[in-house]
Amino acid sequence: MITLYYAAHTCSLASHIALEDAGADYELKRIEFAKEEQRSPAYLKVNPKARVPAMVTPNGILTETPAMLAFIAQSYPQARLAPLDDPFAFAAIQSVNSYLCSVVHVAHAHRMRGYRWSDDPEAWASMQRKVPESVGACFDLIEREMLKGPWVAGDAYSIADPYLFTLAQWVEGDGLDITRIPRVIDHRRRMLERPAVKKAIAEELAN
Amino acid sequence: MITLYYAAHTCSLASHIALEDAGADYELKRIEFAKEEQRSPAYLKVNPKARVPAMVTPNGILTETPAMLAFIAQSYPQARLAPLDDPFAFAAIQSVNSYLCSVVHVAHAHRMRGYRWSDDPEAWASMQRKVPESVGACFDLIEREMLKGPWVAGDAYSIADPYLFTLAQWVEGDGLDITRIPRVIDHRRRMLERPAVKKAIAEELAN
Repeated sequence: MITLYYAAHTCSLASHIALEDAGADYELKRIEFAKEEQRSPAYLKVNPKARVPAMVTPNGILTETPAMLAFIAQSYPQARLAPLDDPFAFAAIQSVNSYLCSVVHVAHAHRMRGYRWSDDPEAWASMQRKVPESVGACFDLIEREMLKGPWVAGDAYSIADPYLFTLAQWVEGDGLDITRIPRVIDHRRRMLERPAVKKAIAEELAN
Repeated sequence: MITLYYAAHTCSLASHIALEDAGADYELKRIEFAKEEQRSPAYLKVNPKARVPAMVTPNGILTETPAMLAFIAQSYPQARLAPLDDPFAFAAIQSVNSYLCSVVHVAHAHRMRGYRWSDDPEAWASMQRKVPESVGACFDLIEREMLKGPWVAGDAYSIADPYLFTLAQWVEGDGLDITRIPRVIDHRRRMLERPAVKKAIAEELAN
């Protein structure tokens, strides 16, 4: 049994969808950011970083979305969520996930979490103003170079798909004109048709 | 044969050390940031992100340090750079590498690359002022929670070690009091004694 700590409208959705895709036996525990539950003593024992997601497995606790997604793919090989026998193809998928984590999500985070990197509210405002440009440049690159189609890695669905989908849900909020990234938006639409995605979103909104 | 595109004093050192650790057959190609070579048309064909590192393999090009490190570990299993048969243990190492990439390196980057997230020079200055605190909080967590000792993952050296070492070289420049992170500094000292690390650093400084 796996326990996924998540918060609604965050990147934890990617791991949630992947657990569904894998057919994993898992339970959800919701963390309410509005109540600062991520900083509670109980949660800090699970994840001292005070962030979501975190995943309690029979072997221990994992954090960081790219690592969790790789763990899910390797732990449920019958779900074929990554090319596990091909180090290059696996690394290519991990490269996309690392970019989503360290560049795309980081650019997005400057819209509402500027306090991580500055104590000056005027700097936060200037960061917010640049988000359409910085996130837009990321998605232009994804549209042009990374999303092979129909899925991120080409013909085979993989652990890169729920992660791209999760971040692509935020592009309107980040001020992007979505007509510039039609392939990303088509990918997002096709992801929304998948039962695993519908179930994960419904679970997160229902709790 | 692998070709590693690198720049001196950047995170490409982590992959360079790992290639040495692996006993890989590789060659180096230096990118001069001072000459903006990362934005040259020739390099943009290798890596349209205009960053280092990038690695040309017989199967194609890889970017993003965590993915490259996992590729090296999986491609040279005899070097035992990761617990390849244990998805949880492998994910735990990947979790450290993802944190180093998406949180630690990102916090550090606000010292000199604030232009990525704001167009306002005053905001850049405010970001620089917060780097000792934000990078310091990361290294406090590494010191306390992540670095199991003697190596990152415990008794076995892994692909997390050259990456931590690479970022730990920057802590004085980031304004940290290194006496607060004695275990990280001891790890850095022991890494510097390894022949693979000495060779990689000498190669980067000699070119």
